[in-house]
Amino acid sequence: MVVVLKPNVSIEKRNDLIRQIESMGVKVQITQGTETSILGLIGDTTNLNKYAIASNEIVANILRVQEPFKKANKMFKPDDTIIEVAGRKIGEGHFCVMTGPCSVESEDQIEGIAKAVKENGATFLRGGAYKPRSSPYAFQGLGLEGLEYLKHARERTGLPIVSEIMSVDMVDRFAEDVDIIQVGARNMQNFVLLKELGKIRKPILLKRGLAATIEEWLMSAEYILSEGNEQVILCERGIRTFETFTRNTLDISAIPAIKKLSHLPVIIDPSHATGKAWMVETMSKAAVVAGADGVIIEVHNDPSRALCDGQQSITPEQFQHLMIKLRKLIEIEGKRLER
Amino acid sequence: MVVVLKPNVSIEKRNDLIRQIESMGVKVQITQGTETSILGLIGDTTNLNKYAIASNEIVANILRVQEPFKKANKMFKPDDTIIEVAGRKIGEGHFCVMTGPCSVESEDQIEGIAKAVKENGATFLRGGAYKPRSSPYAFQGLGLEGLEYLKHARERTGLPIVSEIMSVDMVDRFAEDVDIIQVGARNMQNFVLLKELGKIRKPILLKRGLAATIEEWLMSAEYILSEGNEQVILCERGIRTFETFTRNTLDISAIPAIKKLSHLPVIIDPSHATGKAWMVETMSKAAVVAGADGVIIEVHNDPSRALCDGQQSITPEQFQHLMIKLRKLIEIEGKRLER
Amino acid sequence: MVVVLKPNVSIEKRNDLIRQIESMGVKVQITQGTETSILGLIGDTTNLNKYAIASNEIVANILRVQEPFKKANKMFKPDDTIIEVAGRKIGEGHFCVMTGPCSVESEDQIEGIAKAVKENGATFLRGGAYKPRSSPYAFQGLGLEGLEYLKHARERTGLPIVSEIMSVDMVDRFAEDVDIIQVGARNMQNFVLLKELGKIRKPILLKRGLAATIEEWLMSAEYILSEGNEQVILCERGIRTFETFTRNTLDISAIPAIKKLSHLPVIIDPSHATGKAWMVETMSKAAVVAGADGVIIEVHNDPSRALCDGQQSITPEQFQHLMIKLRKLIEIEGKRLER
Amino acid sequence: MVVVLKPNVSIEKRNDLIRQIESMGVKVQITQGTETSILGLIGDTTNLNKYAIASNEIVANILRVQEPFKKANKMFKPDDTIIEVAGRKIGEGHFCVMTGPCSVESEDQIEGIAKAVKENGATFLRGGAYKPRSSPYAFQGLGLEGLEYLKHARERTGLPIVSEIMSVDMVDRFAEDVDIIQVGARNMQNFVLLKELGKIRKPILLKRGLAATIEEWLMSAEYILSEGNEQVILCERGIRTFETFTRNTLDISAIPAIKKLSHLPVIIDPSHATGKAWMVETMSKAAVVAGADGVIIEVHNDPSRALCDGQQSITPEQFQHLMIKLRKLIEIEGKRLER
Repeated sequence: MVVVLKPNVSIEKRNDLIRQIESMGVKVQITQGTETSILGLIGDTTNLNKYAIASNEIVANILRVQEPFKKANKMFKPDDTIIEVAGRKIGEGHFCVMTGPCSVESEDQIEGIAKAVKENGATFLRGGAYKPRSSPYAFQGLGLEGLEYLKHARERTGLPIVSEIMSVDMVDRFAEDVDIIQVGARNMQNFVLLKELGKIRKPILLKRGLAATIEEWLMSAEYILSEGNEQVILCERGIRTFETFTRNTLDISAIPAIKKLSHLPVIIDPSHATGKAWMVETMSKAAVVAGADGVIIEVHNDPSRALCDGQQSITPEQFQHLMIKLRKLIEIEGKRLER
Repeated sequence: MVVVLKPNVSIEKRNDLIRQIESMGVKVQITQGTETSILGLIGDTTNLNKYAIASNEIVANILRVQEPFKKANKMFKPDDTIIEVAGRKIGEGHFCVMTGPCSVESEDQIEGIAKAVKENGATFLRGGAYKPRSSPYAFQGLGLEGLEYLKHARERTGLPIVSEIMSVDMVDRFAEDVDIIQVGARNMQNFVLLKELGKIRKPILLKRGLAATIEEWLMSAEYILSEGNEQVILCERGIRTFETFTRNTLDISAIPAIKKLSHLPVIIDPSHATGKAWMVETMSKAAVVAGADGVIIEVHNDPSRALCDGQQSITPEQFQHLMIKLRKLIEIEGKRLER
Repeated sequence: MVVVLKPNVSIEKRNDLIRQIESMGVKVQITQGTETSILGLIGDTTNLNKYAIASNEIVANILRVQEPFKKANKMFKPDDTIIEVAGRKIGEGHFCVMTGPCSVESEDQIEGIAKAVKENGATFLRGGAYKPRSSPYAFQGLGLEGLEYLKHARERTGLPIVSEIMSVDMVDRFAEDVDIIQVGARNMQNFVLLKELGKIRKPILLKRGLAATIEEWLMSAEYILSEGNEQVILCERGIRTFETFTRNTLDISAIPAIKKLSHLPVIIDPSHATGKAWMVETMSKAAVVAGADGVIIEVHNDPSRALCDGQQSITPEQFQHLMIKLRKLIEIEGKRLER
Repeated sequence: MVVVLKPNVSIEKRNDLIRQIESMGVKVQITQGTETSILGLIGDTTNLNKYAIASNEIVANILRVQEPFKKANKMFKPDDTIIEVAGRKIGEGHFCVMTGPCSVESEDQIEGIAKAVKENGATFLRGGAYKPRSSPYAFQGLGLEGLEYLKHARERTGLPIVSEIMSVDMVDRFAEDVDIIQVGARNMQNFVLLKELGKIRKPILLKRGLAATIEEWLMSAEYILSEGNEQVILCERGIRTFETFTRNTLDISAIPAIKKLSHLPVIIDPSHATGKAWMVETMSKAAVVAGADGVIIEVHNDPSRALCDGQQSITPEQFQHLMIKLRKLIEIEGKRLER
């Protein structure tokens, strides 16, 4: 950590500040510039109260030298994390395809979709039992009933299931029923929920918040990891920008960024990112060649009657077509499509 | 709601769509343009599944004509909501000042600050017992102990208390202990929490999410209102933009916007918005003349030793100076400073 | 165009408004809803003064039904535009690679790079003679001297040249010397410059502005097209968002968006978008499979001594490696790499 | 400037880098941390090629310690700049009000408005002769004819005039005809234009770009100042964010930010920022108490027939009402309303 001082501060005030910082357990080295001087802090600054330092009147700025995430950091764990779920691997050469409807609507619907996507190469079945909706008047999901339908569909097809959790009081239930527990973008900084999910031993699919930096996203993963659950899959699903043509802006460059900074697997959600069914195939292809470890795609048997997000769902036929394209690219990338 | 069709669609397909929409319980009127035609939907479109319509192949676009919020809407409740807490009013001519430290650190600290700010006109004492922090390694608040200290400070000074809730399982406790329950920016779309807060009868201070539009913010208020709790105070606390000089960008224009769209009171948090203690006074003044119903300001007796957010906290002396300026402006605005 | 009226307006005021709008040359059809009514405008609304309508006291909102661009619109010219420069084609199945240093630094430098990239498949040589820099104290380019060096490099290698124009008074010179004239992101809405470039018959490479929507970008293309120059190539180069890890956020979804909305070719600049040399290959690959018609990449023989943007330039060796990867993907996409 | 090295680099590579940096004319001091070491650069780093350093393989990051602007920097010129135009002062206690229509539409129109606003306290008459419009099909201004009408209005009322320049070839004409030359948001980084405006001796009103950081804005001012023209007035006019309720988001906190960083005067444009006539008064008031040196407001005698931006223009009557409010606040702020 580097502390930049204001110009022309007295030596007394500077020494006071140095004493204050050193009392926090780090060493300080001064670099005297022509106009300003800077203090280099040596030691473990993870727990340092940088706000306290920043509020000192002679401090102009504080510059961080190291990433604040530890357990998620590739520097401290260079080997990529591989997560194994019911015999399917995610990460480092293993590509996964999670598919299914935005929300579970009926037993028939989810089973029909599950069978259709399984035939075309889906690795996991996704489906919302609980749906976070911006309007209290919109369909909120079937709840526990939806969870049961998902389990039935798993029995019939053998596909492991992915579903979103919305609250701390559902952690035990989800840990028992679901194979991968999804944390939605709106809950990415629901720290109470993250801590509880850190205490269980199920893989967590952590979506990036709508306006979360890559660093904040990794810090949220750190909440889970620091409690002992090492199975975190990151999911980029579009960030909020000024552009309104797409629902959000899919940040494809987040894939190489995560690969550089962390050992955790990262997948892409082209459906929520673009909000347009006709963009899903194109953005899935981009994800594969950019190094993603998987995609999560909304598929609905009848998008025009979907209870949510119909305009971004593709049909099983479109999914079949998409998988033909993806398989080629997965092969070129030297990866294995998990089934 | 207006449905814009693609150019040159067949009459059959158009009639199919009209039948589909009318089966949802609204009437449809066609306007035939030179290149495209549009369908005007007549009736209550609140619960309409617009995604299902959007996914129809002949639909180019759907344009919404009315705001999706009902109970928060000024159109349906033109009189401003006034919230009364322990004899203090908030809204329509009553200006409130909520002050205190980012986090409760000790009994002495919170009592000392409480006394100091009370003397200078604070209406409420704010203080965090539970702190949402982006790092799991940062100070997370004293928890229940902090809540107890806040209650003691209330006893000694008579100031009602405002504190942030982070999870559904704390709702009963907060409803009993705290006078105004704060929902932080990161939980603005924690819908499970909002629904539970809708079931109690304590005022809720709902902060705007970092990247939430004004409409989404009002929809989150709608979650609380639609469950029966009509006491919602909105709080603008800065939005995330590309600018990095300030921590966030305080959207002062959100004040007149809310006043136009809703009957709910709205206050401003200049401390979190700017992240800079030296900007707090200026932005508080701007809030008053822009029509805010109050401000919430971080005050710490010793910012350089604060356990969080020291750089944005002002001292009791600076608060005293700020209140002199605010009083003049509150008077000019024809409002009453509640005490 | 749809005009949404406020609730409960008098019939007199509504009729006044209709008369006002019809006097502008369009017809109006009313759809009477339960709370609000809407006016559908029939006819050519391109030149309509929508601000005048919006300022009428009974108007709640104006919703546009059609895109405002005409000549750039795929609806009015369904066939993709192919641009031919010195025997190389750009667009519809023809993939181009524009490469070279951020700025021309010396005759040796530009010739050395030109030869190196030509061997590895570059279609065009790019290089800045005039450089827009945010600081007046930074290197501003060699100017006319740089242009001469570029021309010499063209003579030696046969590669056509692409260079950025910064001002109206250089249009004649650039039209004569350069094969493709680049308009930088900062000048995307320099309308005086765009109009002048519309009067010549050289291809224009129009970069997307840092905060320009896709629609604004196409409207800037429209400025050039509407003056008669039909040779416009669009270039996505990253948009400004809250994320700071990358220099900008490359909007890969802009490629399918442009392909849907317009017939113009679109290429990608991964160097400026990411600001990181190690991301260039990954993002170039994503661009190919997302449907881009080309890439523009910064290559420098010695990035650590580059006079600008060294950290985002790749070496000729890295370019060679990148092209091996791209060739495979271009082939899979069924496109032809122009040389 | 601080250069952060990657962990575990060899001493040889580090020494090579130090030699490279010192060859650029600065001294280097090493701070050896537990995991990484940092280099503090001592001396004038203004012209340093930081990109060249950043591209070195052992460099993790470069952190800037000082602001890159010099002549605009309050640190090097602590006294506020006061600009005097035709006897009116702008800056340090002198508040100016620039008013008039978005565009000059006829001689009668501009003279009528000029007289109306003069009576109510306008300091300057603003009006667009050349209009930058996102559509080539929209009204582009009367051009030279508009400039003549503005001059006539000046003669009749004595109000100095402010008008926007769009291109380098108009600099001489504007320098002769206009009292304050406005550079629009879209041209904030039209560096060729800025340099030319630096060579004349007329005050320049420099609008902040739609997505320009405060630092970039000051760097654009630096372009003008570094050429010798010291009369720059900054104008905040809203930045582009995700919020769509307002046209842009007015960044009121930019006022105290500029006052801290620079000696230049700063004014606010509430009309363009909000795009809503009914917000103009509120945001003007906020600007005054936040420390602005003036406002620039669109006034039109008949907004519903305005040729541009009617929905954000207020009438002369509304302007009169606004000025009553502003005068009180200007007085409280201890400033003088220039006339």
